Amino acid sequence: MEDGKEQSKSAQKKAEKQAKLAAAKADKAAKQASLPVVGGKKSDEIIGITVSKSENFSQWYQEVVLKAELIEYYTEISGFFIMRPNTMHIWNTIKKWFQERIEAMGVEETSFPLFLSEKSLEREKSHVDGFAPELAWVTMAGDKKLDARVAVRPTSEAVMYPYYAKWIRSHRDLPFRLNQWNSVVRWEAKQTTPFLRAREFLWQEGHTAHLTEEDAAKEVLEILELYAGVYEQLLAVPVVRGRKTEAEKFAGGYYTTTVEGYIPSNGRGIQGATSHCLGQNFSKMFEIKVEDPSKKGEHVFVWQNSWGLSTRVIGVMVMIHGDDKGLVLPPRIAKIQSILIPVGLTAKMTAEDKEAHLKRLDEILATLKSAGVRAESDLRDGYTPAWKFNDWELKGVPLRIEFGPKDAAKDVVSYARRDTGEKGTIPIADLATAIPALLETIQKDMYDRADAAYRAHRLQITKWEDVVPALDSKNVVLIPHCLTEPCEKRIKELTVSDGDQGADKAPDGQKAPSMGMKSLCIPFEQPEGLVPGETKCLSPECGKLAEKWCMFGRSY
Amino acid sequence: MEDGKEQSKSAQKKAEKQAKLAAAKADKAAKQASLPVVGGKKSDEIIGITVSKSENFSQWYQEVVLKAELIEYYTEISGFFIMRPNTMHIWNTIKKWFQERIEAMGVEETSFPLFLSEKSLEREKSHVDGFAPELAWVTMAGDKKLDARVAVRPTSEAVMYPYYAKWIRSHRDLPFRLNQWNSVVRWEAKQTTPFLRAREFLWQEGHTAHLTEEDAAKEVLEILELYAGVYEQLLAVPVVRGRKTEAEKFAGGYYTTTVEGYIPSNGRGIQGATSHCLGQNFSKMFEIKVEDPSKKGEHVFVWQNSWGLSTRVIGVMVMIHGDDKGLVLPPRIAKIQSILIPVGLTAKMTAEDKEAHLKRLDEILATLKSAGVRAESDLRDGYTPAWKFNDWELKGVPLRIEFGPKDAAKDVVSYARRDTGEKGTIPIADLATAIPALLETIQKDMYDRADAAYRAHRLQITKWEDVVPALDSKNVVLIPHCLTEPCEKRIKELTVSDGDQGADKAPDGQKAPSMGMKSLCIPFEQPEGLVPGETKCLSPECGKLAEKWCMFGRSY
Repeated sequence: MEDGKEQSKSAQKKAEKQAKLAAAKADKAAKQASLPVVGGKKSDEIIGITVSKSENFSQWYQEVVLKAELIEYYTEISGFFIMRPNTMHIWNTIKKWFQERIEAMGVEETSFPLFLSEKSLEREKSHVDGFAPELAWVTMAGDKKLDARVAVRPTSEAVMYPYYAKWIRSHRDLPFRLNQWNSVVRWEAKQTTPFLRAREFLWQEGHTAHLTEEDAAKEVLEILELYAGVYEQLLAVPVVRGRKTEAEKFAGGYYTTTVEGYIPSNGRGIQGATSHCLGQNFSKMFEIKVEDPSKKGEHVFVWQNSWGLSTRVIGVMVMIHGDDKGLVLPPRIAKIQSILIPVGLTAKMTAEDKEAHLKRLDEILATLKSAGVRAESDLRDGYTPAWKFNDWELKGVPLRIEFGPKDAAKDVVSYARRDTGEKGTIPIADLATAIPALLETIQKDMYDRADAAYRAHRLQITKWEDVVPALDSKNVVLIPHCLTEPCEKRIKELTVSDGDQGADKAPDGQKAPSMGMKSLCIPFEQPEGLVPGETKCLSPECGKLAEKWCMFGRSY
Repeated sequence: MEDGKEQSKSAQKKAEKQAKLAAAKADKAAKQASLPVVGGKKSDEIIGITVSKSENFSQWYQEVVLKAELIEYYTEISGFFIMRPNTMHIWNTIKKWFQERIEAMGVEETSFPLFLSEKSLEREKSHVDGFAPELAWVTMAGDKKLDARVAVRPTSEAVMYPYYAKWIRSHRDLPFRLNQWNSVVRWEAKQTTPFLRAREFLWQEGHTAHLTEEDAAKEVLEILELYAGVYEQLLAVPVVRGRKTEAEKFAGGYYTTTVEGYIPSNGRGIQGATSHCLGQNFSKMFEIKVEDPSKKGEHVFVWQNSWGLSTRVIGVMVMIHGDDKGLVLPPRIAKIQSILIPVGLTAKMTAEDKEAHLKRLDEILATLKSAGVRAESDLRDGYTPAWKFNDWELKGVPLRIEFGPKDAAKDVVSYARRDTGEKGTIPIADLATAIPALLETIQKDMYDRADAAYRAHRLQITKWEDVVPALDSKNVVLIPHCLTEPCEKRIKELTVSDGDQGADKAPDGQKAPSMGMKSLCIPFEQPEGLVPGETKCLSPECGKLAEKWCMFGRSY
């Protein structure tokens, strides 16, 4: 409508339009820069990331998730974050990938209420102890006090399992598998970090029941492999598959398997996602049992699993791939995989030439889209190509394609990879095959680099005195360990570095070197060199025999 | 594993197996019948729906949603319901259909926190007044009292709009459109009903901002048409499109458009989904403004819309299509569209003949699946065909296909439509085209029947004395009305029938005839016969001129 009016305006109005464009530019710049208070001051005039990833990892991360428009801080209530459309695209891509695979396994979707009663929560003692400090309690409805307060789910075992007892009537109902996509609330006292630790987060939670331990165990690993797939195949993030120690397993469960990631910038380990075998602990408490098909008249309690993957995965991806220019997205999860920007359109060019050039650019865009590439062109007026380059680099678009008159004359496009900065040209005739191939190359290279970094910083250590220096050099360590809880607790104390012990409360790892290490997992893939009945636990105060190589690290 | 063992067992074991099958049958029957307390007694032994839809609509509905495994009552906390996989399939089908269409409009997905602060809630006075009595308040985290209590969102205007003020910096950012799929909590004091009125429900909520009233108004109607599409095209439910009166519009909004449904069994109207223009009410309170592109230096407050569609749609569909045998699903939203059941397999048949027959049945299933039909076969042992027929009828599967030796001899299958009970045969050679066509016919016929019922019970009335008898005969009425709030309130009082006035608290409509009528909408499609400046409002106590034909009815 506005455009229609503009066309009929006089030349005098044109000057006004120029002024508006300039205003729009300033307006846009102001918008780009809109930042909450970071590091104590409001920085309203700086576009792009203001600190380097290596020098101030914490602020770098906070700026990236904000300026790449993944997150907005929810200033109304601390510890909560708004997931913006760029985040939802990634999450929905993960959701679709995972959902298709669990559906094929026979897992069905459900939706249980948000609240749980105090009574059902209390049935499994060790479970409630694990979550009690973080429960958000609803005590009022309108202006009336509730007869019985209710808690917002921190996870749904206690919400769901009373119904499993009702629905599972025969061993023919097994395996019984449900999953739900929802949000859960854990009112953390610790400082929160976008994606990694928030008081509310999106996730999926699967809850299944099986006749035998073997059936349950098989599924635990199938799901864990899907979680590894989310990281490795979609997010280009390498993970180590393993089992949690007793000290670190899920409250109330039998055992926990995990995929563990690694953040090179601060050398910390990070739990990626967990798949738990709950054993019969919950089924005994909630009376979920069936007639034993092999012993007529006798009952068996079912074997249960629960497994969850949350939006935390996005934070891990950001931390691993991002750089000083901002976000770097793996092509498979990028909403825009390739941004097409016209360049070299000088004031000397005729209107006809410009039009003809933009028409060719449109054709290139169409070619890319029909080749299945999620491509867009940036035709915004009033911004220089350089400004646009920065803008899309900040937002992590994997591949920039530039197209100017010189490119046109040679029937090529120029490109720049976001991950490496590498530049080159591609003949227009080859775009439909070359660009999808290049995107896959970028995806693979991103994974390979991250994998090399993880492997280089996962040190197998056999002398205690090497442990703390390894941690201080941003490594995680594999050590022979007895797997007992007291020893693990003592190791955490022993590995606190000299200096400020309170620094492990820092949100991000900048002051992390002083933090003690904890066990990350017992990797399924065990290195050689541990002699059963002979190799001792590495802890200098332990003296027990080592059971396994266990991965320890400073961690999130 | 069990099967492998079974094969090596002796004949003596076979008898045991027979016994187990019998036990399984009983077990299954018990499971089918598992009912919560309905009407004061636990009915553990009855399979199928125990009351007729026409005689006890309320209990009929409760049994259908439970026994067709759409819902489970969440007995831990009253007013909450568990959505089972059969429900989630329907909801996900609707979600996909709607999501594709709003994405094409340029609406992006977001996810805002579950909680809102008291401060942001109070900014829009009439809005907070509308929701305050139903707010669930979190006052404790763990064992600590929160400094400032937070409310669970009943809808997200007050959660989202502070950020719209931040994100919308220029008129070039408009239209600005976000949508989220989540659950909201409204702690209803009234009796709850599965799907229709629950203390928590799933929905989508879209929140958009526009430069002009015209742009906002256009979108309001585009979305309303999508809501009508969900009902008419997916759920085979006819709706009337219209605008709410001032008395019935959204709290704090400018105007509300709605699609209104009708439940023939009790003659009640039911609000289907609403698309609101919020005007500038919220933008003024939350300071969401941009520079006016037509008046340099001046600012305009944006025009906002919000629109939501909830799992209520599923309840409306159940009420309209279900019958005394249970649920009846429209084919487009049915998880299983066609169930294939072998019949006529007598004890006299040889094992080879049986196997050959089941092989053909498998081929038929494969044919249907490759024709895009969501088909399954029911090969459960130990159940008669008749028992299976009942089971799938209860669950609403649109088309049953029977295949017995007599059918095989004629190269046909026999079928039975769930909606009409009509039976017939189809040559096997024609299945790939005939079955999809038949499913579409069922879809269309279901809509047409419901539409005819709605049209027949939407009475245009011009004499006041005809109103209450029309309501008592399960109609909704179109009357000339002044559209003023006091008149509408008085009409509600005037149309309470003789007898128990408290009966409008009944959950379902069985005692509804005594309830007064309220306005449902001002239909966009206005009948003829209202003379502006001449026709009076129909209320005998009003005396003002009629503005429009307004649809009134007893309602949910």
